[in-house]
Amino acid sequence: MEITVQDIIHHLTAHVELRDNTVDQLISGSMDQLVTGVVVAFMPTQQVIEQAVQQGANLIIAHESPFYNHHSHTKWLTEDPVYQAKRNLIDEAGIAIYRCHDSIHQVQPDGINEGLVQALGWTSFLEQRKLEADILYFDHNFTVQQIAEHIKRTLNIKYVRVAGNLEMTCQRAAVLVGFRGNGNLTIPLLHNERLDLIIAGEGFEWETPEYIRDAVQQGRQQALIMMGHAESEASGMKLLATRLDEDLPGLPVTFVGEQPVYNVL
Amino acid sequence: MEITVQDIIHHLTAHVELRDNTVDQLISGSMDQLVTGVVVAFMPTQQVIEQAVQQGANLIIAHESPFYNHHSHTKWLTEDPVYQAKRNLIDEAGIAIYRCHDSIHQVQPDGINEGLVQALGWTSFLEQRKLEADILYFDHNFTVQQIAEHIKRTLNIKYVRVAGNLEMTCQRAAVLVGFRGNGNLTIPLLHNERLDLIIAGEGFEWETPEYIRDAVQQGRQQALIMMGHAESEASGMKLLATRLDEDLPGLPVTFVGEQPVYNVL
Repeated sequence: MEITVQDIIHHLTAHVELRDNTVDQLISGSMDQLVTGVVVAFMPTQQVIEQAVQQGANLIIAHESPFYNHHSHTKWLTEDPVYQAKRNLIDEAGIAIYRCHDSIHQVQPDGINEGLVQALGWTSFLEQRKLEADILYFDHNFTVQQIAEHIKRTLNIKYVRVAGNLEMTCQRAAVLVGFRGNGNLTIPLLHNERLDLIIAGEGFEWETPEYIRDAVQQGRQQALIMMGHAESEASGMKLLATRLDEDLPGLPVTFVGEQPVYNVL
Repeated sequence: MEITVQDIIHHLTAHVELRDNTVDQLISGSMDQLVTGVVVAFMPTQQVIEQAVQQGANLIIAHESPFYNHHSHTKWLTEDPVYQAKRNLIDEAGIAIYRCHDSIHQVQPDGINEGLVQALGWTSFLEQRKLEADILYFDHNFTVQQIAEHIKRTLNIKYVRVAGNLEMTCQRAAVLVGFRGNGNLTIPLLHNERLDLIIAGEGFEWETPEYIRDAVQQGRQQALIMMGHAESEASGMKLLATRLDEDLPGLPVTFVGEQPVYNVL
């Protein structure tokens, strides 16, 4: 079966209308390139690209940019040796990289949220899928610590960061992936949805966690688990890989993961 | 000695010209209020405000906003119970809060950078003070792990996050405080200043640490220590408190610290 990069992009974006300033784009390679295999990843790191080359795959579908900025700008990097080496590897191996960011967030339900809640085994706790958050109702009284340990165990991650009291029990939580951990989203949710707990990927340190700190100091029962940006979004890309593998019989599709980008010391 | 809030703001801003869109402003209280005591803090948390009330201090000079967003907007928070309780405490106790963010970064040298490098005992390693980073040259071959442990011990913080190889030895490092840990600042510095190591406060997870991950995968010797936003800036505010205490004889000036906003689990 002859499938081009363009065919796969059509498949990925068939049910969404991308906004004008979308970051979703073909970052390297060409639309008419015949696809020999697909690697799906959260971040197209050097290691992910090397792995694709080894596997004989020439299309990487990644949620984030390979070039260390959300808009994949490269002009500022032209003299940078790490960028140059990465760019050379991509070009010499003929790897097409397609950024699949906005489209997977725009489908209903958000494919990244869906993958995370599924990976956590929490689909039965779903009360409401909002545009940028899933609202969960736990039918048991889990403590913050129990939920944090569950997240670490299920997603196989080494650490999470927690604000608030570890012994507090939670019933109502919101799950927000990626960089949706900022106060403009989390603080209205906490109040409007009467939440005990925010579970998020990444956000400014001076917003949500400082709100939680103040809430606790005022005697309220609220907490925050910040799991890491990649850790909150990789499961969604893994789910995409599984689906693509079903949709593209005869074409090898694999998810390639990474270690957490930070070690805690 | 009768000192007003206005007098102290004049003193703090005497040598800088604040830009039009500065975030530095009197957030509560009034300019002509007589100051009974000064509390200096990184973040004017609920606990810091309570401590000021207990100490009989009615002016808090803080680096960050009390209201969980950089521009101290409050309209979006009017219905929020945590905001309401904090606002009531501030108003009922008659606490003036002055945001001292841009002015302390604008003085030469940057007062926040100066406080951090001094607290780390690294003033003798200073090679160059750039506008947004201090460049250090270590005259010993310290490993990343040794430097990370030194930071934790000296600043009394529980954890730092590290990207790169812990055993790598470092000679040239840049120190960037607060939210200066993003790629637009760190990546050109790494190249132009031939750095082994970036030491920063906070930054997007998809920028600097992912660059370091790729650099290491390419066989380069580079690393990143991310110490936390508050952890990188509190020493600068502490230094400001010491200086204000000397400049304002007869008026009690104290620095009030906070625990790290996150626990790692």
